[in-house]
Amino acid sequence: MTSTQKEKKLWGGRFSGDTAPLVERYTCSVDFDSRLHAQDIDGSKAHASMLASQGIISQAECDAIHQGLEQIRGEIADGTFVWRQDLEDVHMNIEQRLTEIVGTPGQKLHTGRSRNDQVALDFRLFVAACLDEWAANLRDLIGVLTARAGEHQDALLPGCTHFQPAQPVSLAQHLLAYAQMFRRDHDRVRDALARTRISPLGAAALAGTTHPLDPGQVASTLGLGGTFANSMDAVSDRDFVLEATFCGSLIMMHLSRLCEEIIIWANPRFGFVRLPDAYSTGSSIMPQKKNPDVAELMRGKTGRVYGDLMALLTIMKGLPMAYNRDMQEDKEPFLDTHDTVAPSLAIMAGMLTELGFNRERMQLALKAGFLNATELADYLAAKGVPFRQAHHITGAAVAYAEEQGVGLEDLDLAQLQRFSSDIDDDVFAVLDYGNAVARRHVPGGTGPGSVRNQIDNLSSWLDSVSRT
Amino acid sequence: MTSTQKEKKLWGGRFSGDTAPLVERYTCSVDFDSRLHAQDIDGSKAHASMLASQGIISQAECDAIHQGLEQIRGEIADGTFVWRQDLEDVHMNIEQRLTEIVGTPGQKLHTGRSRNDQVALDFRLFVAACLDEWAANLRDLIGVLTARAGEHQDALLPGCTHFQPAQPVSLAQHLLAYAQMFRRDHDRVRDALARTRISPLGAAALAGTTHPLDPGQVASTLGLGGTFANSMDAVSDRDFVLEATFCGSLIMMHLSRLCEEIIIWANPRFGFVRLPDAYSTGSSIMPQKKNPDVAELMRGKTGRVYGDLMALLTIMKGLPMAYNRDMQEDKEPFLDTHDTVAPSLAIMAGMLTELGFNRERMQLALKAGFLNATELADYLAAKGVPFRQAHHITGAAVAYAEEQGVGLEDLDLAQLQRFSSDIDDDVFAVLDYGNAVARRHVPGGTGPGSVRNQIDNLSSWLDSVSRT
Amino acid sequence: MTSTQKEKKLWGGRFSGDTAPLVERYTCSVDFDSRLHAQDIDGSKAHASMLASQGIISQAECDAIHQGLEQIRGEIADGTFVWRQDLEDVHMNIEQRLTEIVGTPGQKLHTGRSRNDQVALDFRLFVAACLDEWAANLRDLIGVLTARAGEHQDALLPGCTHFQPAQPVSLAQHLLAYAQMFRRDHDRVRDALARTRISPLGAAALAGTTHPLDPGQVASTLGLGGTFANSMDAVSDRDFVLEATFCGSLIMMHLSRLCEEIIIWANPRFGFVRLPDAYSTGSSIMPQKKNPDVAELMRGKTGRVYGDLMALLTIMKGLPMAYNRDMQEDKEPFLDTHDTVAPSLAIMAGMLTELGFNRERMQLALKAGFLNATELADYLAAKGVPFRQAHHITGAAVAYAEEQGVGLEDLDLAQLQRFSSDIDDDVFAVLDYGNAVARRHVPGGTGPGSVRNQIDNLSSWLDSVSRT
Amino acid sequence: MTSTQKEKKLWGGRFSGDTAPLVERYTCSVDFDSRLHAQDIDGSKAHASMLASQGIISQAECDAIHQGLEQIRGEIADGTFVWRQDLEDVHMNIEQRLTEIVGTPGQKLHTGRSRNDQVALDFRLFVAACLDEWAANLRDLIGVLTARAGEHQDALLPGCTHFQPAQPVSLAQHLLAYAQMFRRDHDRVRDALARTRISPLGAAALAGTTHPLDPGQVASTLGLGGTFANSMDAVSDRDFVLEATFCGSLIMMHLSRLCEEIIIWANPRFGFVRLPDAYSTGSSIMPQKKNPDVAELMRGKTGRVYGDLMALLTIMKGLPMAYNRDMQEDKEPFLDTHDTVAPSLAIMAGMLTELGFNRERMQLALKAGFLNATELADYLAAKGVPFRQAHHITGAAVAYAEEQGVGLEDLDLAQLQRFSSDIDDDVFAVLDYGNAVARRHVPGGTGPGSVRNQIDNLSSWLDSVSRT
Repeated sequence: MTSTQKEKKLWGGRFSGDTAPLVERYTCSVDFDSRLHAQDIDGSKAHASMLASQGIISQAECDAIHQGLEQIRGEIADGTFVWRQDLEDVHMNIEQRLTEIVGTPGQKLHTGRSRNDQVALDFRLFVAACLDEWAANLRDLIGVLTARAGEHQDALLPGCTHFQPAQPVSLAQHLLAYAQMFRRDHDRVRDALARTRISPLGAAALAGTTHPLDPGQVASTLGLGGTFANSMDAVSDRDFVLEATFCGSLIMMHLSRLCEEIIIWANPRFGFVRLPDAYSTGSSIMPQKKNPDVAELMRGKTGRVYGDLMALLTIMKGLPMAYNRDMQEDKEPFLDTHDTVAPSLAIMAGMLTELGFNRERMQLALKAGFLNATELADYLAAKGVPFRQAHHITGAAVAYAEEQGVGLEDLDLAQLQRFSSDIDDDVFAVLDYGNAVARRHVPGGTGPGSVRNQIDNLSSWLDSVSRT
Repeated sequence: MTSTQKEKKLWGGRFSGDTAPLVERYTCSVDFDSRLHAQDIDGSKAHASMLASQGIISQAECDAIHQGLEQIRGEIADGTFVWRQDLEDVHMNIEQRLTEIVGTPGQKLHTGRSRNDQVALDFRLFVAACLDEWAANLRDLIGVLTARAGEHQDALLPGCTHFQPAQPVSLAQHLLAYAQMFRRDHDRVRDALARTRISPLGAAALAGTTHPLDPGQVASTLGLGGTFANSMDAVSDRDFVLEATFCGSLIMMHLSRLCEEIIIWANPRFGFVRLPDAYSTGSSIMPQKKNPDVAELMRGKTGRVYGDLMALLTIMKGLPMAYNRDMQEDKEPFLDTHDTVAPSLAIMAGMLTELGFNRERMQLALKAGFLNATELADYLAAKGVPFRQAHHITGAAVAYAEEQGVGLEDLDLAQLQRFSSDIDDDVFAVLDYGNAVARRHVPGGTGPGSVRNQIDNLSSWLDSVSRT
Repeated sequence: MTSTQKEKKLWGGRFSGDTAPLVERYTCSVDFDSRLHAQDIDGSKAHASMLASQGIISQAECDAIHQGLEQIRGEIADGTFVWRQDLEDVHMNIEQRLTEIVGTPGQKLHTGRSRNDQVALDFRLFVAACLDEWAANLRDLIGVLTARAGEHQDALLPGCTHFQPAQPVSLAQHLLAYAQMFRRDHDRVRDALARTRISPLGAAALAGTTHPLDPGQVASTLGLGGTFANSMDAVSDRDFVLEATFCGSLIMMHLSRLCEEIIIWANPRFGFVRLPDAYSTGSSIMPQKKNPDVAELMRGKTGRVYGDLMALLTIMKGLPMAYNRDMQEDKEPFLDTHDTVAPSLAIMAGMLTELGFNRERMQLALKAGFLNATELADYLAAKGVPFRQAHHITGAAVAYAEEQGVGLEDLDLAQLQRFSSDIDDDVFAVLDYGNAVARRHVPGGTGPGSVRNQIDNLSSWLDSVSRT
Repeated sequence: MTSTQKEKKLWGGRFSGDTAPLVERYTCSVDFDSRLHAQDIDGSKAHASMLASQGIISQAECDAIHQGLEQIRGEIADGTFVWRQDLEDVHMNIEQRLTEIVGTPGQKLHTGRSRNDQVALDFRLFVAACLDEWAANLRDLIGVLTARAGEHQDALLPGCTHFQPAQPVSLAQHLLAYAQMFRRDHDRVRDALARTRISPLGAAALAGTTHPLDPGQVASTLGLGGTFANSMDAVSDRDFVLEATFCGSLIMMHLSRLCEEIIIWANPRFGFVRLPDAYSTGSSIMPQKKNPDVAELMRGKTGRVYGDLMALLTIMKGLPMAYNRDMQEDKEPFLDTHDTVAPSLAIMAGMLTELGFNRERMQLALKAGFLNATELADYLAAKGVPFRQAHHITGAAVAYAEEQGVGLEDLDLAQLQRFSSDIDDDVFAVLDYGNAVARRHVPGGTGPGSVRNQIDNLSSWLDSVSRT
């Protein structure tokens, strides 16, 4: 750093040597924390208003600061603002420019504030805005899943366990399972939001400010739910970022499961879905290919969000009180998580909206695979055969049918009765796939009434959360 | 597996070959899921009662099942129950023994139930019990921190940022920072509990039962808050384990920070604490050693809980609907987390109760290190000097005092005035450490009143949560 | 701990208080480090021999120690050895028993040794033995893959990219891809072994022993490749465990990929494989199921090994010199990794040996999906059409054939020539699947000659490594 | 994408719909893979030369391609090259521009190549270049550690275990422990390099090229050590990135340990080091602060590299053969790791070069803390007292001296003899710190001769590796 630059460093007074250039780049955060500029400006405006209310600065100084900050917001928006690496971070870049614009009042803005509580405030506002966006995207996605389920209440496909055909389910039931996952994600995001929306301003460097500030005013100006309980905790707490990143990890985990199904269903052996052109790509070498790239990439991106979570957990391990510079490393993992989670949710909603379902291929898959075997076992159990025995009888009948190359429903009564004299003519209604689904009318089951209820409940929930 | 063994396998009917012995060990879960036996028994009793209420089994059969299950609970408690690897898991071990004891009613117990919803219920009950224990341990630990803070409201030590002495804080304030971390952990545990306490019974294998079950009765018998919304989700959702393990990760992260401080404070260069004999060990080779083993080990155990979280996230990535055997791997990571988190909290509470604080060594550290430099800068700012300038002036004064080998409070007025004519005789009260602390009376700050309020608030909170 | 117990603690002299019972359990390691008993005995015998060679103990004392240690080995083998929690770890349990058996010589055994270098030696010997076992299991698995490839050189199936059929490959080529992955794993395991097989004995607690020991003799007695270069590093280096666990992580990652394919291939939509009874299980509720449980479980177990790696990385982060108690946490993650990796490799070898391949189903899949589209593009390119253009032409032809519901090979020449006049009668040989495979005779390609060479090379390699 | 854009897509032929704009950004990789442009150009040049050697293109075409590619390299260097998002990746951006410059030969360049083997080659070349840089930086850092050790062979400080003073060691020995860690890292990097430097070109999409290519020529032109063994493996193997990232994780773990020590040593309670101005920063609010920001940040950055490793492991888990789009996510984690590891090593070397060591403060710390207690125990053991007993005697003496507030060396003979009649006048030479260090002359110990040997060995090693 040149002598001019050194004078610019906030803390340069006691230092005689220059910062090594490689170090300047290594420690500089403006490349990524400039993304927090809106929050920095909002926080500074709220701080200035409070300083004026408390008589620490004049109303005129406050007005000048507000106008200067809005001018800076404009400069950043239109790309004329010059970000300087030697000013280290977003806070100093904005404060320096503010002082250029408004003079002395700019220098008073920092009264009672430290970069430790300032960055904690900015980052909390930023994370809260991201969580709000995730919540909105989750609602959209749940809306799409609910709508597509509504269209496909009568389409049946093999429900799998162990990725083996198990029992017939409706496509609606299958889609609604994902709606429930994302609804839990929405709950978690709301819980995380409540813990994020706390103002740390007034904690200063670590011990609390000596100035007669009113932290509550700042919090209420910014629409936050409360103020910090302990100043040392306030500047060194990063739980909110960790919790948000964990929420993002579960969202990606759920998306990865849905992606896996889309990828498998798009394989010609299944052919359950037709990928929309807008959400798939071809091969540079194999002209016949239609690749589920978007689903694959989204599944892969799960890894980066898990990695971000692990990064943050590692960073915070074993750090003594209070702020440590390690914590500067909290931003990039979360930014990466946000840049992954928010578009992933939006793209999945778009892709599902346009995804074509091939009910014929689903029906075909259903007919193979003995998906009515459980029905036979239950039928026997209902006739008083202990379930474990009924299971053994059915297993033997399946083995026999498999040898014959037919389904259970294709055996005649005499053949079936070889395995149990409890089997009667009424068995064939039981072996019907539609009946098998209809029979599962327990709340939450795949039966049509249950599915209808699930759709209604989700629609009501969507209405209620959209109003808030 | 011998032919006798094969007959015992629930699903053996269609299989002609034996399970490879190495495979039998590899897939067997009874070594760890036997820890869920109490939950399995409770769940089966609730299921049996509901089957009787619905008229699916008789009340006499239900009574026999209840008595048989309680006999099994007793056999497990007194060690006479024989766990069999060839019966694979806790569910089959208990069901098999039940049938031995009560005969046919034991075989009817499984009606309308699958191992998929049964294991989900057992595990939810188990995780909920663990979370309850964590919550209680967190309350105890917060109680100890609050009590020790109460004893040390007037003890001062250097508050650090960047592990450099920054500003004086009270030991109480330092301890209360941790109380706030653990209080957030308590909040998260309660949120996780609400999402865990949902009954999946009735989801059966994946599509919902065909029997006229009443899932709500089972949930209410077990004191759970609700029933599953979607059967496919119900048997394949492991969010509750992931969320619990994440809560455990944050608890360990917070504990690791406190451990780090205890380890550093116990080093003779600091000497801020005296380790209780009951919580430290010696060296087999160096007779002078008193090692903070417990704090080190606890810090290290943070790694295993992080690892458990990563294991669970990895397991769930990209799994298609619905249950997959991969999910059997969900239990050991959580068991390991519980076996780490629960005693860590209890041991930390015990260690902190007996930890000796050396206020003289803290005072000594305070006097070195210019811990009143911020006071001088704030003093100048209060006299109208823009803060950035006040900071530069103080930096120069510190450099001068350091050269002289004295503290700022040891310079005389003339010396101080060399750096700014705004400095006056009233500066010396400002440079007093006790005053520096007292001045930080912002809510949440280190000032005595603020600390008193923090203690009162925590005490009220402890009272309120203990009543619930 | 009672006063009797306290006397037993090696470091009890200066302590007046007792260890808290919960702490005794928390810090005790004998539950898991007793698995290192063979290595502890081997290391102690080598140490005793060296002490005798150096004249520090007499040959008679050495003989007594050797006999006592072998008696202990026998007691452990036949289950009569009593492991005591109050003796903390495997080292003290064995030393205490040794002293009971042989008296004073037992007390001299620890001369010049600390638990810090002792445990490092034991653990290095243990990890090396595990790595040896992995290497052997990897060789077996590569052997099975090579043998199965040999059987299936002429079986073709769709090679996928993006899980979409891309180009035909031989089943042999597909299996040999995995052989190459495991061969790289074998290389890595050997590299890790070389870095593990270093003796730390003589480093003592951290500064080096003061006794005239000969570390080289101990190393050579134990068959290790060298001795420590720096004593502080020697007692605090856990790189070898981390590297071994990373090797295990890659092995599990590779296995998880193979498991994924087996699971998909076992789904009736594919039906490419028939699971051996010994490596699959059924459903307790669905009698028709044959589940790839073993492959699913193995895929899931990948998570626990990743978690173990993350645990170890976290534990070691930021630890100052030299030994810290956190490092006691190094053993359980590795033991868990070993208990996962070793049987997973063995079971995969066994499962692959018995896995049935359904060539008819593979052939069927091949005929659908335009797996010869690339051939047409390459054919055009060979005729001088720039590749990008050839790709466009073929894409159009595929779209046309898809509309007609036929394969490219089912179009007649006139139809094909609509898309390019460069197409001629010789195109039909090009569109033949077998020819498509044969044409890829580049070294490493799927052509029969290349596959034959790959098999020969692996066979030679297997011969050469088995001899070492 | 507009119709113009669609024509540009390599695979657009069969697609009628446009890519969604959000999807275009989501799937585009040119923002990060443009960093591989040098490798892409080098690889393409080698491929073109080989195509010419094989007679597939003419020498004139090859020359045109080479010149075009060099022109592109120049355009990228001087910033005139226009990167286009709609061209997706670095490969298409360069190929498209090449065709603009040289016409038809540019279109022929892709003959026999797929983006799957092309990207694998580029990335292998890139990772290899990074590993080379890490190896060089590791050598520099080992050089600095060795040099600083050379300067401080006679400076003593307390060697710690459990972060408690244990035995005196030389500062040289302490620094050389780190030299050994980084030397192992260097070994691992070299092993990883050997496995990375393999050419996948010729594997084409997955099955091997049909063109008469010579993969060996490409490998040798690029200075690689070999060619792929199996084409499916070649395009889907990412072990090399994982192994490199693991090497980076261990490097950061080692750096984090050194950072932790520097941070602690810079705290005024220790004062063992003076931070160079160029490698530390001040506080915006506390003028007295000199913060070890660089060391803190580096410690924190350990988390991001661990996170990168976890991301990559997660991405690869359970992927079926062969290339899947998930693998596009392999680059950013490694780029992030490289951008962290390379400067961290360089900055640590720079910081250590300028770090001031305060030998007086180290000496002061040595005198407190009974760092000669082991000496007394060993002294007694040498007189024939069994070591466990000697340890108990010394423990009692330490407790006594502690009560008196003196060191063991300050007790007189009579006082010492109270604890054992085996103590004699020769004990005082034993209690001398310098003697304690000198006595540990075992190879690798802290004794001056051993340290000298360690330095010599490292110097020879540095000479030998620098020549390669």
